[in-house]
Amino acid sequence: MKVLIIGGGGVVGQKLGKALAARGELRGAPISRLVLADMAEAPVFDAPFPVETATCDISDPASMERVIDADTDVIFLLAAVVSAQAEEDFDLGYRINVDGTKNVLERCRALGTKPVVVFTSSIAVFGGEVPQPFTDHSALNPQISYGAQKAIGEILLNDYSRRGFVDGRGFRLPTISIRPGKPNRAASGFMSSIFREPLQGQSANCPVDRDFPHFYLSPRKCVENLIKGAELEQAALGKCPSMTMPGRVWTIGQMVDAMTAVAGPEPASRITWEPQPELAAILEGWRMDIRPEKALQLGLEADESFEDNIRYFLEDDIQR
Amino acid sequence: MKVLIIGGGGVVGQKLGKALAARGELRGAPISRLVLADMAEAPVFDAPFPVETATCDISDPASMERVIDADTDVIFLLAAVVSAQAEEDFDLGYRINVDGTKNVLERCRALGTKPVVVFTSSIAVFGGEVPQPFTDHSALNPQISYGAQKAIGEILLNDYSRRGFVDGRGFRLPTISIRPGKPNRAASGFMSSIFREPLQGQSANCPVDRDFPHFYLSPRKCVENLIKGAELEQAALGKCPSMTMPGRVWTIGQMVDAMTAVAGPEPASRITWEPQPELAAILEGWRMDIRPEKALQLGLEADESFEDNIRYFLEDDIQR
Ligand SMILES: NC(=O)c1ccc[n+]([C@@H]2O[C@H](COP(=O)([O-])OP(=O)(O)OC[C@H]3O[C@@H](n4cnc5c(N)ncnc54)[C@H](O)[C@@H]3O)[C@@H](O)[C@H]2O)c1
Ligand SMILES: NC(=O)c1ccc[n+]([C@@H]2O[C@H](COP(=O)([O-])OP(=O)(O)OC[C@H]3O[C@@H](n4cnc5c(N)ncnc54)[C@H](O)[C@@H]3O)[C@@H](O)[C@H]2O)c1
Repeated sequence: MKVLIIGGGGVVGQKLGKALAARGELRGAPISRLVLADMAEAPVFDAPFPVETATCDISDPASMERVIDADTDVIFLLAAVVSAQAEEDFDLGYRINVDGTKNVLERCRALGTKPVVVFTSSIAVFGGEVPQPFTDHSALNPQISYGAQKAIGEILLNDYSRRGFVDGRGFRLPTISIRPGKPNRAASGFMSSIFREPLQGQSANCPVDRDFPHFYLSPRKCVENLIKGAELEQAALGKCPSMTMPGRVWTIGQMVDAMTAVAGPEPASRITWEPQPELAAILEGWRMDIRPEKALQLGLEADESFEDNIRYFLEDDIQR
Repeated sequence: MKVLIIGGGGVVGQKLGKALAARGELRGAPISRLVLADMAEAPVFDAPFPVETATCDISDPASMERVIDADTDVIFLLAAVVSAQAEEDFDLGYRINVDGTKNVLERCRALGTKPVVVFTSSIAVFGGEVPQPFTDHSALNPQISYGAQKAIGEILLNDYSRRGFVDGRGFRLPTISIRPGKPNRAASGFMSSIFREPLQGQSANCPVDRDFPHFYLSPRKCVENLIKGAELEQAALGKCPSMTMPGRVWTIGQMVDAMTAVAGPEPASRITWEPQPELAAILEGWRMDIRPEKALQLGLEADESFEDNIRYFLEDDIQR
C-alpha cells in the first residue's frame, strides 16, 4: 500500500502523515511507503515505513508524471491555493486549484490504475441565495473564486470517478479550528486565532458578535475523517462521491465559553471585540448552517463538543 | 448594438438569428451587426442589418480573439459538443465544452468591455440521488460528462460575472421538442422524432412508456427566452446568474395526445412502441420533474400546452 499526500507539507498534510504513521495501515493493508509531495521539501517524521519527500507543482503535468506512479494506491490531494490568495490572484487560483486538480486526475487516467483519490473541497462552495441549511443536495453557489475552483474540482472528481478513471471521494472541509501555527491574513483567521493566541498568552481580535454561527471541525477529527474517507468502499458513495465532511455549527459565544470551561477565564479576557467594517460583508456570508448527512451516515464524525477542540489543541499543538 | 452568436450555424443559433432579424433590436438598441460564428460557414438570412459569418473554434484562444472584439455587446454562446459525442470522446467534450467556454470568458476579460454573455447549459446537470423536483437550489449532480462540462461552464460563468469580467447569464435548456431536421443517433432523439417523423409521414419508435415524464420546451419559446435572458438587468440575477430555463413536464402520452388533438389520429398510428433495453438505464435517469422558478419570476416562459409545440412545428419547421 503506497500512499501519496500531495500538499504533504501543509497543516492538514503533516497531521495526516503522522496519523498514518501511528496507524501503519490503510484500507486493510500495511503501508509500505508514504510520499509527502509539496512545492518545497516537506518535513518528515518517524514512521514504521519509509517516509519520502518529493517536490512538485500540481499545475505542471510533467511534475505529476514524476510523483504519481503505477504503484500509487491512495492519493490525498490537499495542495491548493487558499481563499484570500485565489481571490487576489485570479489566474493563480484557477491554475493551481482547477488545472492542477485536473492534472492529477489526468495522470491517474493515463496510468489506468484507478487509484483512490481523496480530494479536499471546502464549504466555500456554498453561498448566495440558496436556502439554508446547506445539505448534500444543495446547489453549490460559491461567492468567492476559491469556492468556484473547489466546486469545479468536485465535478471533475465525480466525473472521472463515474468514468472509472479514479476511485474518487471528495470532502468539503468545515472551517478547521483551532488551526495551529502562525496567525495568517485570511479573513477566516480569527476563527482560530481568538483561541490559539489567548491560549498561548497573547491577545486576538474577534470581528463578529458572540451570536455568529459557523460550521467547524478540529484538525484531529479532520484527519480521522480523511482516513475514514479513504477507506470507504466505492459502492457506498452512490452517484455522488463528493459530500460535506462532518462538523458542527457553533456560535462564537459557545466556543469562547468552551475555552473558559476547559482553560479557565483568563484566555477569554485576552479577546478584543472590534468589528472590522471592511470584512463585514464577507463575514455575513459565512453565517452558515450546514448538515453533513451523507458523511455521517458513512461513519465520518464531528467533534462531540467545542471543549474537545480546545483539549485537542492543548494536547496536539499548543506552543508555549 | 453588435451581436455575436457562437454556434450560429446550429439549430438554436439559426432560429435565434432569424428571431433577432425579425425584431431588429436588443436591449433597447437597434442591432447594427450580427455575426454568426461557427466551425463551418453558417447559413445567412435576410435581416434589417448586416449579417456576417465567421468560422471559429472556441477551443482555440486565437480564434476567439478574432471573433470577439471590443465592439461586441452581446454574445450568445451556443457552441458545444452534444451529449452522446461528449460521452464517447472524453477529451473532445472537455476541450470544447469547458476549455472552449473558458476561452470565450477569458477573451472578454482581456478586452475589459464586460459584454453580456448568454450561456446555454442543460438539464443534464441534474441527476443522481438528489431529490426531485429539481429547483434552482438543487445540487448539480450530472451523470454524464456533457452535464459535468455544462455544470463547470455555469460555475465559470457565475464567477467571471461576480468578478465583473462579463455580464453573464446561464440557462439550463429543457429538452427541445420538436427539434427540426434529420433524426440523429442521440439517446434523446426519440423525444423529437416520435412527432417529427409521423407528422412528416414517416414512422418512428418510442422506447419508453406513455407515462414517462420529462421536461420539454419548443424551439420557438427557447429562442424567445434566450432573447429575454439577454435583456435582463444584471441586478435582477442576484447571486447566481445561472438558472433553469422554463419548460414543462409532460408525459409522452400527453404529448402524443396533443399531436392527435392538433393533427388528427394518423400521425400517432405511425409510432411503434418497442423498448430498447440498451437505453433503459439512461432513460430511467431522465424521468425528471424540474421547477424553473427563478426564470419564471424573471419573465421567461414555457409553452402553454404541448398542442402549442405541435403547432409551432407545423408553422416553422415541417418538411413535406
Ligand atoms: N484548513 C482549513 O480550514 C480548510 C478548510 C477547507 C478546505 N481546506 C482545504 O484542505 C486542503 C489542505 O488545507 P491546509 O490547511 O493543510 O492548507 P495548507 O495551505 O496548510 O497546505 C497546502 C499545501 O499545499 C501546497 N501547495 C500549494 N500549491 C501547490 C502546488 N501547486 N503544488 C504542490 N503543492 C502545493 C502548499 O505548499 C501547502 O504546503 C486544501 O486543499 C484546502 O483548500 C482547508
Ligand atoms: N437542443 C437541445 O435539446 C438542447 C438542450 C440543452 C442544451 N442545449 C445546448 O444549447 C446549445 C445549442 O444547441 P443546438 O441544439 O443548437 O446544438 P447544435 O448542435 O445544433 O448547434 C451547435 C453548434 O455549435 C457548433 N460548434 C460545435 N463545436 C464548436 C466549436 N468548437 N467552435 C465553434 N462552434 C462549434 C456546431 O458546429 C453547431 O453548429 C448547445 O450549447 C447545447 O448544448 C441544447
